[in-house]
Amino acid sequence: MTLRFAILGAGRIGQVHARAVAGTPGAKLTAIADPVAKAAEAVQAAYGCDIRSIDAILASTDVDAVVICTPTDTHADLIERFTAAGKAVFCEKPVDLSLARVKACLATVSANKGKVMVGFNRRFDPDFMAVKAAIDAGTIGDVEMVTITSRDPGAPPADYITRSGGIFRDMTIHDFDMARWLLGEEVESVFASASVLTDKKIGELGDFDSANVILRTASGKQAIITNTRRATYGYDQRIEVLGSKAMVQAENHGTNRVVVADAAGFHAAPLLNFFMTRYIAAYANEIAAFVASVNGGTALPTTTHDGLMALALAEAALKSVAEGRAVKVTEVL
Amino acid sequence: MTLRFAILGAGRIGQVHARAVAGTPGAKLTAIADPVAKAAEAVQAAYGCDIRSIDAILASTDVDAVVICTPTDTHADLIERFTAAGKAVFCEKPVDLSLARVKACLATVSANKGKVMVGFNRRFDPDFMAVKAAIDAGTIGDVEMVTITSRDPGAPPADYITRSGGIFRDMTIHDFDMARWLLGEEVESVFASASVLTDKKIGELGDFDSANVILRTASGKQAIITNTRRATYGYDQRIEVLGSKAMVQAENHGTNRVVVADAAGFHAAPLLNFFMTRYIAAYANEIAAFVASVNGGTALPTTTHDGLMALALAEAALKSVAEGRAVKVTEVL
Amino acid sequence: MTLRFAILGAGRIGQVHARAVAGTPGAKLTAIADPVAKAAEAVQAAYGCDIRSIDAILASTDVDAVVICTPTDTHADLIERFTAAGKAVFCEKPVDLSLARVKACLATVSANKGKVMVGFNRRFDPDFMAVKAAIDAGTIGDVEMVTITSRDPGAPPADYITRSGGIFRDMTIHDFDMARWLLGEEVESVFASASVLTDKKIGELGDFDSANVILRTASGKQAIITNTRRATYGYDQRIEVLGSKAMVQAENHGTNRVVVADAAGFHAAPLLNFFMTRYIAAYANEIAAFVASVNGGTALPTTTHDGLMALALAEAALKSVAEGRAVKVTEVL
Amino acid sequence: MTLRFAILGAGRIGQVHARAVAGTPGAKLTAIADPVAKAAEAVQAAYGCDIRSIDAILASTDVDAVVICTPTDTHADLIERFTAAGKAVFCEKPVDLSLARVKACLATVSANKGKVMVGFNRRFDPDFMAVKAAIDAGTIGDVEMVTITSRDPGAPPADYITRSGGIFRDMTIHDFDMARWLLGEEVESVFASASVLTDKKIGELGDFDSANVILRTASGKQAIITNTRRATYGYDQRIEVLGSKAMVQAENHGTNRVVVADAAGFHAAPLLNFFMTRYIAAYANEIAAFVASVNGGTALPTTTHDGLMALALAEAALKSVAEGRAVKVTEVL
Repeated sequence: MTLRFAILGAGRIGQVHARAVAGTPGAKLTAIADPVAKAAEAVQAAYGCDIRSIDAILASTDVDAVVICTPTDTHADLIERFTAAGKAVFCEKPVDLSLARVKACLATVSANKGKVMVGFNRRFDPDFMAVKAAIDAGTIGDVEMVTITSRDPGAPPADYITRSGGIFRDMTIHDFDMARWLLGEEVESVFASASVLTDKKIGELGDFDSANVILRTASGKQAIITNTRRATYGYDQRIEVLGSKAMVQAENHGTNRVVVADAAGFHAAPLLNFFMTRYIAAYANEIAAFVASVNGGTALPTTTHDGLMALALAEAALKSVAEGRAVKVTEVL
Repeated sequence: MTLRFAILGAGRIGQVHARAVAGTPGAKLTAIADPVAKAAEAVQAAYGCDIRSIDAILASTDVDAVVICTPTDTHADLIERFTAAGKAVFCEKPVDLSLARVKACLATVSANKGKVMVGFNRRFDPDFMAVKAAIDAGTIGDVEMVTITSRDPGAPPADYITRSGGIFRDMTIHDFDMARWLLGEEVESVFASASVLTDKKIGELGDFDSANVILRTASGKQAIITNTRRATYGYDQRIEVLGSKAMVQAENHGTNRVVVADAAGFHAAPLLNFFMTRYIAAYANEIAAFVASVNGGTALPTTTHDGLMALALAEAALKSVAEGRAVKVTEVL
Repeated sequence: MTLRFAILGAGRIGQVHARAVAGTPGAKLTAIADPVAKAAEAVQAAYGCDIRSIDAILASTDVDAVVICTPTDTHADLIERFTAAGKAVFCEKPVDLSLARVKACLATVSANKGKVMVGFNRRFDPDFMAVKAAIDAGTIGDVEMVTITSRDPGAPPADYITRSGGIFRDMTIHDFDMARWLLGEEVESVFASASVLTDKKIGELGDFDSANVILRTASGKQAIITNTRRATYGYDQRIEVLGSKAMVQAENHGTNRVVVADAAGFHAAPLLNFFMTRYIAAYANEIAAFVASVNGGTALPTTTHDGLMALALAEAALKSVAEGRAVKVTEVL
Repeated sequence: MTLRFAILGAGRIGQVHARAVAGTPGAKLTAIADPVAKAAEAVQAAYGCDIRSIDAILASTDVDAVVICTPTDTHADLIERFTAAGKAVFCEKPVDLSLARVKACLATVSANKGKVMVGFNRRFDPDFMAVKAAIDAGTIGDVEMVTITSRDPGAPPADYITRSGGIFRDMTIHDFDMARWLLGEEVESVFASASVLTDKKIGELGDFDSANVILRTASGKQAIITNTRRATYGYDQRIEVLGSKAMVQAENHGTNRVVVADAAGFHAAPLLNFFMTRYIAAYANEIAAFVASVNGGTALPTTTHDGLMALALAEAALKSVAEGRAVKVTEVL
């Protein structure tokens, strides 16, 4: 069986998913939708698919699944409409910036018996999968501490920040999901400390650019997340898990493996500088996993519940910053 | 302008090139030829091209260029026929196992004013390109010593070895080309030392599995090549160039970037185990370079002359092993 | 001028300092004191110094300086007595487990115009000195985030834990000092999260074995400290400082630089497993710095004020764990 | 039993050995000899030993062993005289620059039933010992190829080169010994290729500054040695041994473990720049091994036979360079 896709939104991330769908055996890109004609045409030209409106796609009998890459404030509505129409849905994170809206959406999905996967791409990175596999195989024993270093090369534009929901909902949300996945136990409390250090304008927009978070489970396992919007040396994405028997870590990816050695020392290339380059395999793998789940009728690997929980951790982090104390997740859920 | 390709031979390497052609902007895969129907059909299914005979391709007006991936003993003939037909030719190495035949082929290509690129894929590996760029930029000063470590994970099957021309013509030939490229000066003499250490059968077939070679230019620059047919830890492909001002090295590629640390120490993954995985980017880059050259009317980056010279070094190496002395390249050319 | 030393206490750390003093040009080991005769005799045998009582050393005119390596609860008294006697004092951390006692001791030292250096040895580790030098040279721009990973290979014996003042006063205190040193700005608030994960007995003793701390300065710079009492792969001591222009990190020290590569991957040695091996150069350097300061009449590089501040951070951390909130340092000082 | 040492020669290497002897349990530095009074006095001042003439040391009943650190052309004579006097002898390499003289010396040592250890310090480097231990433990299976990269940061002064016997007898001799030790089988033939690339003056003195050597045993095992007198990035000392089951390698030692990452990439320190810093542990270990052997009555770990064989490989290498062919070791012995 071939899963026939439409992609809603032909922006940067829509193009990433178009490429992934086109390259996935068992998947076919049938249509693209975007109000910006040029964007849709570019995808059409590259992959030979139709251009249709979202409403047309909703009514299309030759579309089995959609990938939602539209602006965040449309996600929940589209999830509800497309699951009601019986389409399988892959939705870019987040489901919504409002917890209440996410909960309502989940209820609708449940009523629709919808299949919805939320795009936490990092779970599909080959290195992070190897980390998780080592944990699951018992290689490191009991998980005790998860350390996530997640630093962007540079801040997004001001208008993106304004719409993003802030650093915790936009950037840390990936790390919250990673932490939940790797801890293997739900987070009970969140402490977060956030600053504006790289650019005053980010503060003027009500956001932060530098943050550290400590997550804690009921049994005392902990995760530390460290974020910044400016790492001059590239996109810094490291994960380390300390267990009772061993430690496992995923190291960074440089732009190449070349070293120059001179009188000043040894010089290697900076890191891959962009999430699309760094996570190119992850984006392909997550679409392949979605196809395999939908075609195979198995449970989706990441769900709207995961989307809800990651957003709840972001809410708790914001409350923690405001109140200077550890916040229980139950306080915000 | 779009360069329309046919691929001659749908075996392992033919499939690699089909993928590269299909993924290269400005290139189009028009036809595939292979006497094994299943092999040709697999390529057709994957990329939607025609299946044609080699003779039909020779006569096709909708084919501008061919990639020769047929058995080695057909290469020289096909180069001659397709250049005579005015097609641009990309030919897998080697042109032929006989120096005399290669020379004759070169003369025909020249008479045909043919465009022929020989597939020394490693020159297009992003890391090795960065090494070369560092040399060309003057970063390391004058090149003094080139060190190439090139070890296969395991030996090919006996029947391949029999047809291969032996380790120097089959395996070291890539390193000979690398050495010429990086030394920036023609090799004057070759000393080679070869043994059978991993498998007696290789010796019974008249071949070697372990070899070291010292190349030397007129000005005294040297290159050392070390080969083996068995590296248990993966496909070991390292290059190091020592210059008067600095040293530059390209390190190996592991299968992932994950490290497990326990009481026994730190454990990282073995190397990528296969030339197609290790050099996947190189294969894409070389086809892109071929397309750019043919479309742009510029000089091809690797030529039949390069094929000739690498084979001459292999011949000199064989003579050196037999006679226990450094052999001048002029003795075999 | 040669600085004549007596060492008070011939235990494990006393022996480290005896060796450092004996090996420091400009320093001479004159006497050792220890109630355990065998311990004192071992030092005497190794370095040819006298064995004297602490009272005798206090009265000795041929002793210019003392290194206090006695049990923690004697430190403050000895500092007061020896500064009153005009001796220069090098005291192992901590000055005392009680902030009030430390403050009283500082007042006495001040009244005595005493010279007292507190042994924060890590400031004298060559790698950490290089990190600090990079900061001071402006190489990384403004300091934004300090990350300290500090993990012991295994927990100390129960009786040591009982007397130690707990993980924050005993182990994290080194990291608190490092953080203050590297942040370049006083810490304003402390959040700490501590668990018992490696050994229930540690919890029964009222202590923790796993802790994460976020420190924050007035301008929003942050430091993260992560501690555990069990790292199976050795003594894990990493420091990383993110600045506006660059990041600088000090990597771990393996027991050797040998790698074995086989079909399972690449295997390197575990880390140096003991603070005395890992910091052997630091111990030598700190005594040399003390000698240089006392002989040269310059300011001591680490002072009782540093001891006080590190202890205050430990107190704040304990209060934070108890109350689940960020604690201002002014609340405990 | 304490082994009482005299050191003959208080130059650079004499000082290294004085320090090693002084720091070795079971050893005592009794006397130093040097015609340059200042040099001898410096050692006396540092370690409190006597200054005596060589003749006086020969007659001293309180001296059990000598370390010969005098100019090369005196080594063989001193070995003969001191073994005749019943002293244990540790002699810096080489025994002599003439093979005939070395053979004669060996005969005398044998007649004297002398105990003579030749200072191939690298065998006592902790990393190289770990490499050898891995081989001896069967970790890598059968040894197939040994690769030794040995590059000096800079050339010695012209007058040293003149007296040194040339690059093969002076520098490569260490690598020849390493290769013999690691191959575990005697070398049968030598091919060497040498150039002058870093400094014409070295060529004018009749020496080379860049060399590659292939050694080969009867069973076809091979060792490759690559030398240069100029490595701008420090003292490059790497060893790699490929076996049938695994590969083992000893990596370089940087001056520190600090990395700075900025927009240009990751920057680590250059290598330790001097043989005394790089091999400080090896020098201490070799004296300790000498003391243990002499005191324990066991076989010395490196012998005059090892000195003879390493020199024979150097002779064969020189002959190979002159004649452009592989030279059998039996041709020069």
